[in-house]
Amino acid sequence: MRVAEIAPAPARPVVEDVRPRVEDGRYDAKGTVGDAIEVQADAFLDGHDLLAVDVHYRHESERRWLREPMVAIGNDRWRGHLIPTKTGRYRFQVQARVDHFATWLHDLRARIAAGQDIAVELLVGADLAEAAAGKAASTKAGAKDRDRLAEFATDVRNGFIPDPDEVNDAILAGLVAKYAATGATTSSPIYPIRVERERARFSTWYEMFPRSASSDPKAHGGFLDVIDRLDYVRELGADVLYLPPIHPIGITKRKGRNGAVTAETADVGSPWAIGAKEGGHTAIHPALGTEAEFGKLLGAARDAGIEVALDLAFQCSPDHPWVGEHPEWFKHRPDGSIRYAENPPKKYEDIYPLDFESAQWRELWDALLDVVRYWIGHGITIFRVDNPHTKPFAFWEWLIPTVQADHPDTIFLAEAFTRPKIMKRLAKLGFTQSYTYFAWRTQKWELVEYLTELTQTEVADYFRANFWPNTPDILTEQLQHGDRRTFTLRALLAATLAANYGIYGPAFELTERAARHAGSEEYLDGEKYQVRHWDLEEPRSIAPFISKLNAIRHQQIALQHDRTLTFHHVDNDALMVYSKTVPLSTIGPLSTIGPLSTIGPPPTIGPPSTKLPGPAAAPVVVVANLDDRHLQGGWVDLDLSALGVDGSRPYVVHDLLADVRYRWEGPHNFVQLDPDVTPGHIFRIEAIDDAPVDGGLK
Amino acid sequence: MRVAEIAPAPARPVVEDVRPRVEDGRYDAKGTVGDAIEVQADAFLDGHDLLAVDVHYRHESERRWLREPMVAIGNDRWRGHLIPTKTGRYRFQVQARVDHFATWLHDLRARIAAGQDIAVELLVGADLAEAAAGKAASTKAGAKDRDRLAEFATDVRNGFIPDPDEVNDAILAGLVAKYAATGATTSSPIYPIRVERERARFSTWYEMFPRSASSDPKAHGGFLDVIDRLDYVRELGADVLYLPPIHPIGITKRKGRNGAVTAETADVGSPWAIGAKEGGHTAIHPALGTEAEFGKLLGAARDAGIEVALDLAFQCSPDHPWVGEHPEWFKHRPDGSIRYAENPPKKYEDIYPLDFESAQWRELWDALLDVVRYWIGHGITIFRVDNPHTKPFAFWEWLIPTVQADHPDTIFLAEAFTRPKIMKRLAKLGFTQSYTYFAWRTQKWELVEYLTELTQTEVADYFRANFWPNTPDILTEQLQHGDRRTFTLRALLAATLAANYGIYGPAFELTERAARHAGSEEYLDGEKYQVRHWDLEEPRSIAPFISKLNAIRHQQIALQHDRTLTFHHVDNDALMVYSKTVPLSTIGPLSTIGPLSTIGPPPTIGPPSTKLPGPAAAPVVVVANLDDRHLQGGWVDLDLSALGVDGSRPYVVHDLLADVRYRWEGPHNFVQLDPDVTPGHIFRIEAIDDAPVDGGLK
Repeated sequence: MRVAEIAPAPARPVVEDVRPRVEDGRYDAKGTVGDAIEVQADAFLDGHDLLAVDVHYRHESERRWLREPMVAIGNDRWRGHLIPTKTGRYRFQVQARVDHFATWLHDLRARIAAGQDIAVELLVGADLAEAAAGKAASTKAGAKDRDRLAEFATDVRNGFIPDPDEVNDAILAGLVAKYAATGATTSSPIYPIRVERERARFSTWYEMFPRSASSDPKAHGGFLDVIDRLDYVRELGADVLYLPPIHPIGITKRKGRNGAVTAETADVGSPWAIGAKEGGHTAIHPALGTEAEFGKLLGAARDAGIEVALDLAFQCSPDHPWVGEHPEWFKHRPDGSIRYAENPPKKYEDIYPLDFESAQWRELWDALLDVVRYWIGHGITIFRVDNPHTKPFAFWEWLIPTVQADHPDTIFLAEAFTRPKIMKRLAKLGFTQSYTYFAWRTQKWELVEYLTELTQTEVADYFRANFWPNTPDILTEQLQHGDRRTFTLRALLAATLAANYGIYGPAFELTERAARHAGSEEYLDGEKYQVRHWDLEEPRSIAPFISKLNAIRHQQIALQHDRTLTFHHVDNDALMVYSKTVPLSTIGPLSTIGPLSTIGPPPTIGPPSTKLPGPAAAPVVVVANLDDRHLQGGWVDLDLSALGVDGSRPYVVHDLLADVRYRWEGPHNFVQLDPDVTPGHIFRIEAIDDAPVDGGLK
Repeated sequence: MRVAEIAPAPARPVVEDVRPRVEDGRYDAKGTVGDAIEVQADAFLDGHDLLAVDVHYRHESERRWLREPMVAIGNDRWRGHLIPTKTGRYRFQVQARVDHFATWLHDLRARIAAGQDIAVELLVGADLAEAAAGKAASTKAGAKDRDRLAEFATDVRNGFIPDPDEVNDAILAGLVAKYAATGATTSSPIYPIRVERERARFSTWYEMFPRSASSDPKAHGGFLDVIDRLDYVRELGADVLYLPPIHPIGITKRKGRNGAVTAETADVGSPWAIGAKEGGHTAIHPALGTEAEFGKLLGAARDAGIEVALDLAFQCSPDHPWVGEHPEWFKHRPDGSIRYAENPPKKYEDIYPLDFESAQWRELWDALLDVVRYWIGHGITIFRVDNPHTKPFAFWEWLIPTVQADHPDTIFLAEAFTRPKIMKRLAKLGFTQSYTYFAWRTQKWELVEYLTELTQTEVADYFRANFWPNTPDILTEQLQHGDRRTFTLRALLAATLAANYGIYGPAFELTERAARHAGSEEYLDGEKYQVRHWDLEEPRSIAPFISKLNAIRHQQIALQHDRTLTFHHVDNDALMVYSKTVPLSTIGPLSTIGPLSTIGPPPTIGPPSTKLPGPAAAPVVVVANLDDRHLQGGWVDLDLSALGVDGSRPYVVHDLLADVRYRWEGPHNFVQLDPDVTPGHIFRIEAIDDAPVDGGLK
């Protein structure tokens, strides 16, 4: 091919390796309203000319592109930010242009420094300004810019020698770049970012079984009992109250207490064996209450600042109405029977899985969408999705955006405890939050490795971790063999490592730890199969500690974000030290946001304001003692620059758990933790003169 | 959107993170004829069903897709190979299917082991086989398969209980998978691989200045002198003879010896200041010889098994004919003068850069293409490209494939010593080979880090390193302060770390090491600016060592490949131990290759043959002493599994440099190297009974 066939001239800059991008742009990266999203890209050029690089972005409902300048951070990498101001999908690209004027200034500086004759070179600058003036003149609102540019050109031609250092920072350079920078290369494809509400990023979950909520030890609890429990939940500090399935429970093949294959008459069955003669996924178990009582619960919770989350468990008991009405939605064996759930040789005869691949899959999928919409119609905005990895990925990839198109505030939490790539795929295709392996990560090295992957790699672009120390199915070996000290440690870690976390209570705060049998992670007499009654006043309860933790989380903005997580060195592997800081975005706008199409001064390029709005935005340093049995001490090496702390001056670390202040100096300080007293410190970094100091080793 | 709008049913398997892929498929990965290319992908599925995963591929000139089965290698990653048999572009995809028959067999095995009633389950298998039989019947050549499948179904219905372990390995399972596996997901896009001839991967370069080749110390050498030098070059073991530009050299602003700004009358100038009244890029410097003599050189080189590589230096001296004929191809300053090369405040007044962005860029690009085609017309197949990073990337991205479309065997070596991402980009867009930072990597940690990046990461998919210990511009500090021991060490490293390497001689083999001045990497009295005469018989010459090295490279297939490079531990940082093995592909076909469209037995799934074809394919272990001054010893820990060595039996390491054999046992063995004797060992691993053993410490 002769080059004549290429038109127009290809642009010189290269833009590649743009972040955030998920599966080459096929899936959305994730963000939340008001939080700056860091954009990075490689951008470079042949030869010695300088580049100007911007990120361009827009909300999908807007036509106008906004732009923010990016800055070089070394090794041809550029960084910028976009700040989403509303929910929905944003799209962005990175654009690099050859900045001939900046190049001219850069060279002019070198020529002047070397004492070279610059007479002719000055004319080059005048030509550039003049060309820019010409372009400015051709735009609607460019008259003023044209005058400024033409004036500069004339001055230079008349002998004015600009000071490159001054011009470089002036409005003029921006004007020339704006009108005369050529050869723009724009990244492709246009990458999408899904922006959600704040609770997608920061949430505090509490799971409880309504049937165990009665204050009458002999009664089957229900929604009205849960209403009575709301004060307790609010006091704990939860903002999401997750209820296991509230639907009628099947009788056929119902499991008994502790999962017994044969149930006694009085056994209540597993709420996940959904469906009985009273109805299926859109019905309410009569023993829990009426639809009106459920509505009352939702209202009371809303008044208490708590959202109720329901469970989406897309499977049926043999008594589910769909079994009779839609036998085609189930798998059949050659003898005509419906295939129950199994993982050979294990059998789960109380559950019929739905057949997502049947010839009538379209009708089934639509029916499941209707289930979600039904509960959204009742005011539900958060769903915990049971075992999403046993349904086709394509189903969720269709269902979630279909729901969010009408209800962008809907949150889906993926309950998939399975292989890493499957969990990541579910997050990529749209799940708002994901359960994690946190419950089983107990050693420092594995916590550091796992958290680093979740918060510091591209996984953080799409996967929002939700840390649970326990669930009705997961009573870890560590908790079984632990005590109050173990439970407070796990709560501390979950609450401060992850902005989204939850506990299954009251089992957790009452430090329930009897397993069904040795080697099992099932609770003995677990609520999955029976009604339990809990004495919330028991002295063993760690509810006060959890309330304190959650109050600190709500007060300290740093703990509401995951991406600033930083681990710090400590010379004892039983201790783990980490910090979180408030991302720039919550402090203030990064720079003036200028729409591309508006004529005006170029965007201000410079560091964002670093003025903190008070103690709520202070850096937080957590020192956790992973040894729940023994006192441990060690020397901490804080990365002060990561904390924004001036290492030359003393500072105060204020333990928000114990409300004690210590005076620290420099990075190297000693800590000592007794698990009988506390599982750790949650230090807020304060200036030395903010408050009186209570103690400290120096 | 209602699901009814989705058609057909989305497939369940997920395929992602396919390798090799370069810039999400925008650029070609690289391969060479006959070498298996490893393909990897993540593939997984919801639920518990099993997958069948294949790589499908075809040469772009063929319509028929070939397929090779992939195998699971853990963490949902799959691996397979494709073997290109001719040059040109291949395309491949990875396809994953739900293998219901394999799932059925897997479950059947579990049910039988648990003693469950399998009567109904057997019918499921019969149904699957019957469905496959139905599909087989509908294909042109499927009659035989249909019979086999129908027979199996009938047998099972009649009470035959298949042994799952037997069936699983039989042809039957393949047949069912072939006809009945459903829900295929195919990776997208279709990734390209450019397959080149062997020399793209394995080449031994020798650079020399023809003008310094005369045996008469007073004469300006030329092509006929180079012909006389061919025996020497062949003896050294080079197969590419690279000549700096052979074109007329400008007189205006010609540089003098050692780069002096003003030349003496007798000074010959830099060959890179191309163009004089005798002509430009398609002319030959009269002092070097005639076009006929150049043709004679090419013929003689060909007869000696040597390819002559020319230099593409797309820049002009002020006397180049294009300056007068096409002033529009150059940048002009406001005073009308042509802009010479500069990097302010540095000036290169003997060079006019071409302006790739001028209004007449199309004509210029075409003229440069004509230059390449001109020399290809003379029989040149290899080009070393001077400073490609100072020309637009888009120019090379157009030029290289345009040339290779007609001349697929053309090799381009990128001489870009610049920032990492720029060097990588040039490789991505089409350069066959690339110069590297090798010359400046002298410490063990940095060599290991750099080589690991080049050979073990995705960089290896597109970047073919060419290691040069020196060039006319690069006399490293290490060489300047070194001696014969340093030069042999650097030759050993270059020749055994990289399948492509070269030296600039005779300066290198004569251990020339005087720099122009302290702190400079320029040669004193360098050939860039003057004629030199070399006494090849000087006793200081390390030519015999280099000949030996290259003979070993030609004999040991392992050294002709880079991707099997493995570093082994040794407890002395002055020693570096690494190995190369022969990739599977050169040993034999990996499996039967079956075209997808042909009805026949499914491809054989199983490990490739590991029978070695003799000592040429043996693993090679290099022990290098990076300390060129002192004797160093240490204990080596060989990764025997990487070498395919049975650790339970003794083996022989045969030093091919010294032709000495040692008996080693297990991974842990002692080595000691005296730089006065040798910079290292090149060990061929041999079976204990292959040859008598000369020595060894055990």
